[in-house]
Parts: sequence; structure tokens; C-alpha cells
Amino acid sequence: MATQVRIALDGMGGDHGPRVVVPAAAVALQRRPDVSFQIFGDEAQLRPLVDAHAALKARTLIVHSEVSIKMTDKPSQALRSGRRTSSMWMALDAVKKGEADVAISAGNTGALMAMSKICLRTMPQIDRPAIAAMWPTMRGESIVLDVGATIGADAEHLIDLAIMGSAMARIVFDIDRPTVGLLNVGVEEIKGLEEVKAAGRVLRELVIPHLDYHGFVEGDDLGKGTVDVIVTEGFTGNIALKTAEGTAKQIAQYIRDAMGHSVMSRIGYFFARAAFQALRQKLDPARANGGVFLGLDGVVIKSHGGADSFGFAGAIEVGYDMVRHELLGKIRDMVAQANEAREPGSSIAPVEA
Amino acid sequence: MATQVRIALDGMGGDHGPRVVVPAAAVALQRRPDVSFQIFGDEAQLRPLVDAHAALKARTLIVHSEVSIKMTDKPSQALRSGRRTSSMWMALDAVKKGEADVAISAGNTGALMAMSKICLRTMPQIDRPAIAAMWPTMRGESIVLDVGATIGADAEHLIDLAIMGSAMARIVFDIDRPTVGLLNVGVEEIKGLEEVKAAGRVLRELVIPHLDYHGFVEGDDLGKGTVDVIVTEGFTGNIALKTAEGTAKQIAQYIRDAMGHSVMSRIGYFFARAAFQALRQKLDPARANGGVFLGLDGVVIKSHGGADSFGFAGAIEVGYDMVRHELLGKIRDMVAQANEAREPGSSIAPVEA
Repeated sequence: MATQVRIALDGMGGDHGPRVVVPAAAVALQRRPDVSFQIFGDEAQLRPLVDAHAALKARTLIVHSEVSIKMTDKPSQALRSGRRTSSMWMALDAVKKGEADVAISAGNTGALMAMSKICLRTMPQIDRPAIAAMWPTMRGESIVLDVGATIGADAEHLIDLAIMGSAMARIVFDIDRPTVGLLNVGVEEIKGLEEVKAAGRVLRELVIPHLDYHGFVEGDDLGKGTVDVIVTEGFTGNIALKTAEGTAKQIAQYIRDAMGHSVMSRIGYFFARAAFQALRQKLDPARANGGVFLGLDGVVIKSHGGADSFGFAGAIEVGYDMVRHELLGKIRDMVAQANEAREPGSSIAPVEA
Repeated sequence: MATQVRIALDGMGGDHGPRVVVPAAAVALQRRPDVSFQIFGDEAQLRPLVDAHAALKARTLIVHSEVSIKMTDKPSQALRSGRRTSSMWMALDAVKKGEADVAISAGNTGALMAMSKICLRTMPQIDRPAIAAMWPTMRGESIVLDVGATIGADAEHLIDLAIMGSAMARIVFDIDRPTVGLLNVGVEEIKGLEEVKAAGRVLRELVIPHLDYHGFVEGDDLGKGTVDVIVTEGFTGNIALKTAEGTAKQIAQYIRDAMGHSVMSRIGYFFARAAFQALRQKLDPARANGGVFLGLDGVVIKSHGGADSFGFAGAIEVGYDMVRHELLGKIRDMVAQANEAREPGSSIAPVEA
């Protein structure tokens, strides 16, 4: 890594494209002065926006690209139309070629993951990638993975997820030994899917320095923040994430309905509106921004498509932290430690899929 | 079925036992005069409570049992200690012997399902049972199944769930052709688990009178109420349910914190407290009470363990409706119609597991 963290931005991604990406870069540069940017996209749109920020202009290389991946493109369409030529691909390729340390896009998740897999490939020893999300909890935040990169998982993949999530948690939460739980339908060892039980048996015995295995957790432990890292395969993780988002929206609707109901409650709302604004911020999905793609041979961050420039700046800072604190190196070290602890013949030797 | 709906109650189940079950029966009798009760449990506790309600006393047979299943008993423990002798088992056995039309318990879910499977067995043509939950939505309510009876499902089981859920929805919502969605990680036909895709292909082509297949739905469609019936296997369903409950609790906590924050917001709370009470009722899990066990050769209703007597009375009324409107007959008819539509050789012939 160079002295500066070199950040490749997909300038065209997200609902708002350059109008959010460029101001976000300016915000991030103020907060993290040791960065430089390559921004990929339509130069005619990007140039005037970058020129408007003198400090940003001095640290930014604009690289023109002809193709923008649409938010509605299916992964297969995106690959057909945008492989090599799109702003999304070119940002990833900058990481691949060693010209950038991290790629960040607010473009569509399926396309970004499909391109990441082809362009960057997975790390040695990791078979399949994952998406980790920051999950707001009663205690603060937890990391939940996989929220949808890979459908289905055997025990070995769940163990990989536990390791990758811990590596990320060490950086995000600045703790030495994050607690890790496996999402299941009960906390007793006899319950649940076979692969979850098998992963639990290995993790219980696995002694590696930077992972504190807590045991099984249930759906309501997500909101409680029972552990720092919650591990599940991508189907269940995606449904849990969207269910929680849906419930939050539903309750926000209930609150609006309830508060508009009578003159008294409208007066109440008037006095309580600062509290409601605070509540709205907590429920705002743009606040917990910056999904991290794990398991790839490169650092890739997915910003929420609807994020504003402060939200996207948050995703840039997540990417910065992952590079500065060596996410990939931490994962590599922890995988090696886990493999050493699991020499063939030990009771926690690799489990059959 | 006799003229009266004959209801077998586990008098000892739930957090409160007879103190909730007996008053609940009295409430239900007022609302549904054409019922009679058998209440199983400790006669010394039940007798004085029943005697306090003259109308209830005239319609109730108390059957003494020595054993009560604890809320903390594992299913295996419950079967060891309470098979044949517990109030829970005896209520189920009354249905088995044709002496009651429905069994209702607020006892622990795992034990009740384990005993139901052994005592009542599954219906012909249905391999595995399911638990259906009422899910509060922005539109009203939906039915979600399976929320945890059976872990893992092949395509055929998902189709059974769609049929059983529709039969229940016809009764609960009093509609002729409920809409049904399969829970998945995207709405496109190419996404998701193989078994979900296979079930979707069959349901799309299956023309049966009382099931309107909508397609795939996602986690946030649960709260939206996009369809009347949402189908998923028990692992994902259980995690979705608990995630939503956890999110609701988390937001309730945020609201308490936000409203206690300043003098102004406390004044706001004072004026808005009627609205907040309405909100609390909507978020109260005891309101949406009466999980229905489907696929068994008998009607079994699970009340929430913490329900009060009005909540438990709601579960009794759900059971009453399922009997009066012939849940089991509706399921049998729909299974037969589906099998007819799926003659071997048709494009929607039974799919390999």
C-alpha cells in the first residue's frame, strides 16, 4: 500500500450518480486527508463537479468510461454490456491492477458482486464471497453476514464467514476478539440445520486469537446486539435483513398514522418532533451504510443506492479503514491460524460438506 | 362434528396456566355460545376457577391430569415425562379419540408439536407438519408458514405449505381465492434456492380454484402485506419471525429513549399518549395470537405462552373457526384438486426432491 489510500470510485453508480459521488469524495477527503481518488465515469458530468472542489481536484484522476450500469440491470446484462467498459468494472479493475487499494460503488448489488467475482476472484482458501452489512442494534451495531452474495452454505463456508466477519469486526469496532454467533432457530446445540450444527461444533473447539465464539443466536438477537458478528448463509441473511427493514418501515407508518389521529396527538407530535427526528435517523437505512464484500482478492465496498453524499462518504470511510487496517491481511492470517488449529486428525478437522 | 364445537384445552399451559385458561374459556363462550369445553389439568386448581363462572361450568368437563409440561421442557423431556399423562397430551388425545374437535394449548411450542406429531400424526398426503402464524401488516394481517415446525423443505413440501396456508386463509380472511407468495431473495424467476424455484414453477402452472399464486416475494413484503399467504420453510420462517419481533422491540426501545430525552418531548408524550397506546397494541405480540398447526390429522392451536385471558380467548376463537369452517376438509379437497391437476406426464408433475 502506498502512503496514501488510493480509492477507486464508480462515479455513475447509485440513484444519483456523480451528483452524490463527487461531493461525497470531497467530504471524505476533509475527514481523511491521506487519500487520493480515481473516479470512473462520464467525464463531461464528472469534470465540472470535481473542478468545483479545489482540494478534491488536486487529488483526483478522472477516468472516462462510456458505459454506466443501470440500477435495474440484471447481473448477466451488466456483464454483457459493461465488462471492461463500464465505470463499475473499471473501478474494480483498478484494484485488480494494483492501481487502487479499494473500489467503491453505489451501483446495483448483483452486478457489482458478479463483476467483482470475475474481475478480482476470491482469495486463496476462500471458496465463495459474502456481503457483510452493518446492523443497528440496541447496543450500537453488529456485523451480519452473508446478506445475499451466496445462496446456501456448507459448514466450511459458515466457518469462513465467521473468520471474515471477525476480521472486519476487529477493524470496524476496534476490538481484539469479537464475539461471533451462528444464526439458528434455537440456542440448544441439538437444534437447527445440520450444516449450522457442524459449523458450531468446529467453532466451539477452534482456538484462534481473534475470534470469540458465543454459540447459536436467534433472529431477535440481531436487534439486541447479543454478539459483534452474526453468521448465516445468504438466503436467510437476505430475508432477515429485508424483514427487519420492512418491519421498521411498517412501524414508522404506524407512528405516522397514530400521531395524525387526533388533535391531541398532533399537539404531542409538535412538542416531540426533535425526538421523532432522532428516531427517524436511527431508522434510516442510509445511516448504516457501506456493505463490505468479503472473500474477494481485493477490497470492495457497496454503498446504499439511495445514499446522499454524507452516506456515500461514510462508505468511502469504511473502505479507507478496511485498507488502513489491512482487512485482507487479517483474513489471511486468521484463515491460516484456523487451518493450523484444524490439522487432519484433530477433532475439529475439516467437515464434510 | 357435533352441533357444538367441542374444545379441548390444556389447562396448565402457558406462563399463567389455569388463571388465564379458565377465564379465557368464559370469554370465548360469551362470544361463541355453541361451544363446549374439556379442560385438562390439576383439578384442585381448575375446579374453583370454573365454578366461579356459572355459564362456563354448565358447558365444561374438567379432566384431572397429574403432569404439567413446563415451558422450559425440551420436546424429548416432555415426551418422557408427559406422554399419555400430561394435560397437553390428554387434550390432543381427546381430538385423536374423536371426543373433541380441536385442542388448544399455550404450552411450549416444541413439546406441543412433538406430541401432536406422535398423537395425531400427519394427514394422508402431507408428509410434514407446519406452524402458521398471523403476521400484522400495513394492510391488516397475512398468514406466514412455516415459522418453525420443520427445518428444510423440498419443492413438494413448499407446495403443500401453499395449499395448507390457502385453506387457512379462506377461513381466517373469509376470501375465496387467497393470494400466495413464495419467500425468496428476489422476485425474478431465476433467483434463489433451487427448491423454491421448482415450487414456483409448479405453482405458476397449477390451476386450482382456491389458490391465486402471486410469485416470489421478499422479506419486506411480510410487513407490506403484499399477499395473503407467505410460504417459506421453517428455518427461514422462524428467523424472519424472530427478526421482526426483535426489530419491533428495538424500535419500541428507541421510542422510549427518544421520548424521555427532553422536557419538550415528555410534554409531547403526554399529549400523544393515546396514540402511543394504540401503537403499543399494534406491536403487542399477544394481539396476533393463535398459531395454527397445519398438516396434522386434527386441529391444534398454539396460543402465545404469555397471552392474557383475552389473548387466549382469541386463540380459542381461531380454533372454533377452523372447526366450523372445516379446515381439514378444505385442505383435503385442495390437495386432491392439486394432485388431479398434476397427473403424471403433465408439465407440473411432481418434482424430484
